[in-house]
Amino acid sequence: MVAKKTDPNSTDMVDIIVKKRDGGELSKEEIQYFVNGYSADEIPDYQAAALLMAIYLNKMNERETVELTQAMRFSGDTIDLSSIKGIKVDKHSTGGVGDKVTLVVAPIAASCGVPIAKMSGRGLGFTGGTVDKMESIPGFNTTLEPEEFVSQVNDIGIAVVGQSGHLTPADKKIYALRDVTGTIDNLSLISSSIMSKKLAAGSDKILLDVKCGEGAFMENEESAVKLATIMCKIGKAAGKTTIAAITDMSQPLGRAVGNAIEVIEAIETLKGNGPSDITELAEQLAGIMIYLGGRAKTAEEGVLLAKQSIHSGAALMKMKAFIEKQGGNPDVVEDYSMFPEAEFKADLVAETNGYVKKINARTVGLASQHTGAGRAKKEDKIDYASGIYIEKKIGDRVSAGDTLASIYGNSREKVDRALGEASEAFQIGNDRTEAPVLFKKIVEV
Amino acid sequence: MVAKKTDPNSTDMVDIIVKKRDGGELSKEEIQYFVNGYSADEIPDYQAAALLMAIYLNKMNERETVELTQAMRFSGDTIDLSSIKGIKVDKHSTGGVGDKVTLVVAPIAASCGVPIAKMSGRGLGFTGGTVDKMESIPGFNTTLEPEEFVSQVNDIGIAVVGQSGHLTPADKKIYALRDVTGTIDNLSLISSSIMSKKLAAGSDKILLDVKCGEGAFMENEESAVKLATIMCKIGKAAGKTTIAAITDMSQPLGRAVGNAIEVIEAIETLKGNGPSDITELAEQLAGIMIYLGGRAKTAEEGVLLAKQSIHSGAALMKMKAFIEKQGGNPDVVEDYSMFPEAEFKADLVAETNGYVKKINARTVGLASQHTGAGRAKKEDKIDYASGIYIEKKIGDRVSAGDTLASIYGNSREKVDRALGEASEAFQIGNDRTEAPVLFKKIVEV
Repeated sequence: MVAKKTDPNSTDMVDIIVKKRDGGELSKEEIQYFVNGYSADEIPDYQAAALLMAIYLNKMNERETVELTQAMRFSGDTIDLSSIKGIKVDKHSTGGVGDKVTLVVAPIAASCGVPIAKMSGRGLGFTGGTVDKMESIPGFNTTLEPEEFVSQVNDIGIAVVGQSGHLTPADKKIYALRDVTGTIDNLSLISSSIMSKKLAAGSDKILLDVKCGEGAFMENEESAVKLATIMCKIGKAAGKTTIAAITDMSQPLGRAVGNAIEVIEAIETLKGNGPSDITELAEQLAGIMIYLGGRAKTAEEGVLLAKQSIHSGAALMKMKAFIEKQGGNPDVVEDYSMFPEAEFKADLVAETNGYVKKINARTVGLASQHTGAGRAKKEDKIDYASGIYIEKKIGDRVSAGDTLASIYGNSREKVDRALGEASEAFQIGNDRTEAPVLFKKIVEV
Repeated sequence: MVAKKTDPNSTDMVDIIVKKRDGGELSKEEIQYFVNGYSADEIPDYQAAALLMAIYLNKMNERETVELTQAMRFSGDTIDLSSIKGIKVDKHSTGGVGDKVTLVVAPIAASCGVPIAKMSGRGLGFTGGTVDKMESIPGFNTTLEPEEFVSQVNDIGIAVVGQSGHLTPADKKIYALRDVTGTIDNLSLISSSIMSKKLAAGSDKILLDVKCGEGAFMENEESAVKLATIMCKIGKAAGKTTIAAITDMSQPLGRAVGNAIEVIEAIETLKGNGPSDITELAEQLAGIMIYLGGRAKTAEEGVLLAKQSIHSGAALMKMKAFIEKQGGNPDVVEDYSMFPEAEFKADLVAETNGYVKKINARTVGLASQHTGAGRAKKEDKIDYASGIYIEKKIGDRVSAGDTLASIYGNSREKVDRALGEASEAFQIGNDRTEAPVLFKKIVEV
């Protein structure tokens, strides 16, 4: 008596699992079989989980990763942006704390003639996503019909909407499964998840902002470069030029971590008054987008155009037009009191003199989430007014009694909890500390 | 925005998966958490599948394997055989083709004073399990109440029943999942599955017959010794002396592969007329059981007693008493026409002269299953009369026209199909070939 497989229908999937388990290379057909079968609910979660763990441990090579991405890209609807004139450039950040750069870069690039037709997710996290943040502007509407979306971009050069439709359902299912099976942190799985969505979203070219540091997926530059490289290769293989910037996420980006306060910081940056790190990063990334969009011969020239756009006020004007077109009051750009304001505030105060040595971005991010600024569960509502405003950043000198950060929220308990958590994030040392280099390198393939 | 785990309840299981994924050693508590949670349906299949693949690829050490076995052993009911006098010895074979040895060994050992209180599964396979085979005897009843079972062993020294009750539910669930997730073939998972059932079944000592060769789980002697060693260590750690014999399964065992025809072959062996391989193996294994049961000072002495028991007719008498006690007609031992007989028969005939070089046991096994002798699905009914009778074994000289094997069945189609399949199993060569060594070695720890 030797036991045998009981379900002949499962044979193919078991063969695929066994092949990857034994270190084999999956064919295009096998990858498609898995992706299509899983997103059609024909392959059960447990077989997908076994395959994902086998992929996690035995890895996928570049060809397999490209084919996994393509299979996921085409697992549902794809967006057709061909009726928008010009070279559409999408931007994606791998995620960090205080990352409001899209809100700065998009109007700059649009003001320089690069059409921005952006779909943005909501998801879980330390703060809301780009569309959540924009919704902190009273009246701002992130739900447009496809025709409205296209005509707005053709009209004013920019539109940002929440993700709708049936895009990359395979990625949604696979991501949810990875989340509960310990298979998140694998280059092929991360890159295929990101790039399948970007490729399905229909832009012609893609700019990736790959974060590295304690607050990011990739904790060091080497692994960030690896991730960036495979994503650029995937983009190229799919016929879409992709450039990645490796940027620092060892401390929160800018000073604001939340929703309304991040939008305000983005507006300040468009006015030329932004924190230096956000300003620098936005100019650099916008420069690459302008170059990718064919509006500059080099990224350097693009950066110059981006700076001019801020200096001339063109970027701010574009932001106002964008807000107005999507139902918001453009006066919000001048009058920040129109944003929702938090009822409670608490200050995190330095206990000693010295220099800020470290600000753990992840800790600040979690504290921000706990003020109500981010979702822990899908059903959670974002509290637009809450968040954390960082007064002192790495390298800053502090004296005992100085405010390191302010916590905003609409419940005393949440603010107090976040205050306690945020206090864990700061390290003050005696020695002078250099601020980390923000813009580390460009990856192109 | 960094995505996070969504279900706080799944945290513990994800931590366990991640630990094993990263090559860590699971603690006793973590293993119990998984086994108990999974058998209570509190841990979903997909998390169990991810962990099993991580265990498959990163392995478990001896301590983890022992603790996995113990957790599975105690995941449901366990059998209490303490009211049976004497040292109860269980026997388990890792599975092969034509393995009717239990039907020979059990009455021999019982006739030598070793109480045999055996529970046997049915399962899927090339033929039925031990209880299925016994049920080919008209009237034979394999369902006894626990008290009947115990009193029968105390009365005549032997009882064999089908597995009942809620034994090792964790093993059942884990095995079913391994079957469809490509995680069958791993030493820790195989050994814990076998040993958890043996330990739960309540005997004092255990004899394992670990098969090696093409028809078995373990294709070579080295891997069979590894499996045997870890199983013996598990038994010892659980306080039950366990001895393993490594035996050949490079060709079917004996000549009969089926149910009724295997019982007949077992009876012939008890009469001293069995095929030499079955006879040798039964004597050796019975010898070890007699030794383990305290009825001989050494295994060698046990073998002598086993031979005497056959020679004197004591073993056959025990078989008759056993059949009668469980509702069968003991005359079946003399009159094989009382067994169900197949309607159709086809002979596999040699096309050339030469020597039998190879008989692929797995191919014969599948052909046997396809005659109706074994279950492919749980719901399948066993056809007791069907099966394959092998006339020529490895090393035998054949002439063109000789019958290599006869196929029995109750449907012409099934017999024809099995005939075609069985023909693939035989290789005839020009050179003299030695019969494989049957009894390879003993493993004790």
